[in-house]
Amino acid sequence: MLENKEAPKTPLDSLGEFALIDHLTKSATTALASTVLGIGDDAAVLKHKGETVVSTDMLIEGVHFDLAYMPLKHLGYKAMVVNLSDIYAMNAQATQVLVSLAVSNRFPLEAVEELYAGIHLACKTYGVDLVGGDTTSSQQGLQLSVTALGIAPKTGAVLRSGASEKDLLVVSGDLGGAYMGLQVLARENEVFKANPQHQPDLEPYSYLVERQLKPEARKDVVQLLHDLKVQPTSMIDISDGLSSEVMHLCKQSGVGCRVYENKIPLDPQFISVCEEFNLDSTTIALSGGEDYELLFTIKQTDFDKIKGNPNLTVIGHMTAKGDAPSLITRAEEVIPLKAQGWKAF
Amino acid sequence: MLENKEAPKTPLDSLGEFALIDHLTKSATTALASTVLGIGDDAAVLKHKGETVVSTDMLIEGVHFDLAYMPLKHLGYKAMVVNLSDIYAMNAQATQVLVSLAVSNRFPLEAVEELYAGIHLACKTYGVDLVGGDTTSSQQGLQLSVTALGIAPKTGAVLRSGASEKDLLVVSGDLGGAYMGLQVLARENEVFKANPQHQPDLEPYSYLVERQLKPEARKDVVQLLHDLKVQPTSMIDISDGLSSEVMHLCKQSGVGCRVYENKIPLDPQFISVCEEFNLDSTTIALSGGEDYELLFTIKQTDFDKIKGNPNLTVIGHMTAKGDAPSLITRAEEVIPLKAQGWKAF
Repeated sequence: MLENKEAPKTPLDSLGEFALIDHLTKSATTALASTVLGIGDDAAVLKHKGETVVSTDMLIEGVHFDLAYMPLKHLGYKAMVVNLSDIYAMNAQATQVLVSLAVSNRFPLEAVEELYAGIHLACKTYGVDLVGGDTTSSQQGLQLSVTALGIAPKTGAVLRSGASEKDLLVVSGDLGGAYMGLQVLARENEVFKANPQHQPDLEPYSYLVERQLKPEARKDVVQLLHDLKVQPTSMIDISDGLSSEVMHLCKQSGVGCRVYENKIPLDPQFISVCEEFNLDSTTIALSGGEDYELLFTIKQTDFDKIKGNPNLTVIGHMTAKGDAPSLITRAEEVIPLKAQGWKAF
Repeated sequence: MLENKEAPKTPLDSLGEFALIDHLTKSATTALASTVLGIGDDAAVLKHKGETVVSTDMLIEGVHFDLAYMPLKHLGYKAMVVNLSDIYAMNAQATQVLVSLAVSNRFPLEAVEELYAGIHLACKTYGVDLVGGDTTSSQQGLQLSVTALGIAPKTGAVLRSGASEKDLLVVSGDLGGAYMGLQVLARENEVFKANPQHQPDLEPYSYLVERQLKPEARKDVVQLLHDLKVQPTSMIDISDGLSSEVMHLCKQSGVGCRVYENKIPLDPQFISVCEEFNLDSTTIALSGGEDYELLFTIKQTDFDKIKGNPNLTVIGHMTAKGDAPSLITRAEEVIPLKAQGWKAF
């Protein structure tokens, strides 16, 4: 429903592989001092002062995204955000990316250009250099693989394993929006399939749809913590849902945790759309994925530095080893957290 | 024809995503001092003294490999070799890899274990640490994406762009074998499809089949050049065929080149199988891909250091800017080199 059916269509095989790569990456000029050599040799050459952090993710059509409601430019942007988020989750500065793309002949050159427009936009927005990748054909559909690199702060990368008992658990932004955005888009797509004349009115859902289609990685939060001189003790990004990520921090740090239901930050639009869909907002906030917010722990002595900051919410605290990670409900019941995150299989 | 039909088959979805990743990577212990943190956090953490080199490649079922004659363990090994070869082609030392895998439900757990057995074997053989990756489902087939990292020598990474007029052009090993190995396997597969009782006798083709199914990256050549105190002026690996790679060196260095047909190193088995298939051995050596040998240039003053080494053959020399890259045939004709490398589209 979001595609331009009248766009010109140039078959991909009208260019050779090398010409296609040249065409797509010609605007990938490098800007960072840490990039010694970008695209065009057997490998890129980087010079990182301090430790390097590196992460990779694959996005598969029909598994991670549906092109019926994900415009290609947004897909390119989101593929970058997903990976950059992993770098920020180490409290590091993202610096370089490599992007590999496999596409079937169903995609014309213009479609691949749209995808790359999103990739280049994300490079500009986050100040990272595109330094390599691969472009090839696929038998079916579109597959994207992104590798992101970054530079750890002098104090070292922040791991999942550093939380201690009594540390405060903090989350950036608000939760559940990306999942509900997907529900809205899927519903509109069903209506569109039944009636192709239907013009969807997404205005009342604009925030949620944007959370799904154009999420942002929290580079700003890493900078904010640096400016506030807050040293997180552990950190993870929220890609699979809050419950799942809290349990990762607990398991890898060897501590328990209490999360307070009434502290979980929710957007008003999210709450009203959950009601419209007859879904429990806490369940969605705990289990809906793709928010790409940062979840981290801090020492209690750092609380005054973040108190009142609109970007950060204390949602609980870590408890002794052996305690089960728990949710304290509004009714003050204690129930065990369960990871109901998104399943790849 | 190479699969064990009686192997036990555990559906992939009987494990969760996290359990599957744990299962596949539990043997990925890290050994290098440059690996600070491996698998298990949002990103790996590396500490590289000197410059980092990084490269990535995607391998798509039905495009880059056919599981009818590529055993999964070999595929895992080869996916690693393809990427490590790019690191060695910078005259660098390979240190870490990240591997992402998308597989459809057609593959049981045992198949994915086989693939990872090849990946782990390559890690051991080449002394690199597996430090990250992603595992997900695909709608169809198997897609692999590997990112390899390495450390450049103190003298800096060797680029494609450093060759000068009069430099000697040198190649490691011999050429064309991987392509002819594929022809042999494809022919046997056709016979097998027509008559499933047929037992192929691959013995007369063992070297060529091994070049295709279990290629090696030339870590040893990088070490040899270091030991001989030879500083290459430019370097590339041969993945798309000799012609294509020679033309890359010429274009990026701004020089011409003369390659002598009678100097191109060919294995006796390769020559005899080209005759059997009625193919011209020079054409195949120039255009057949996947040899993963190193092609590099050296100063003439370094010739004495490599003279007579069985791993290295001088096949030509670089000429003035503006000269077309040329082949000097056995009949002493001068013909322009053409890139007829493997096409991804």
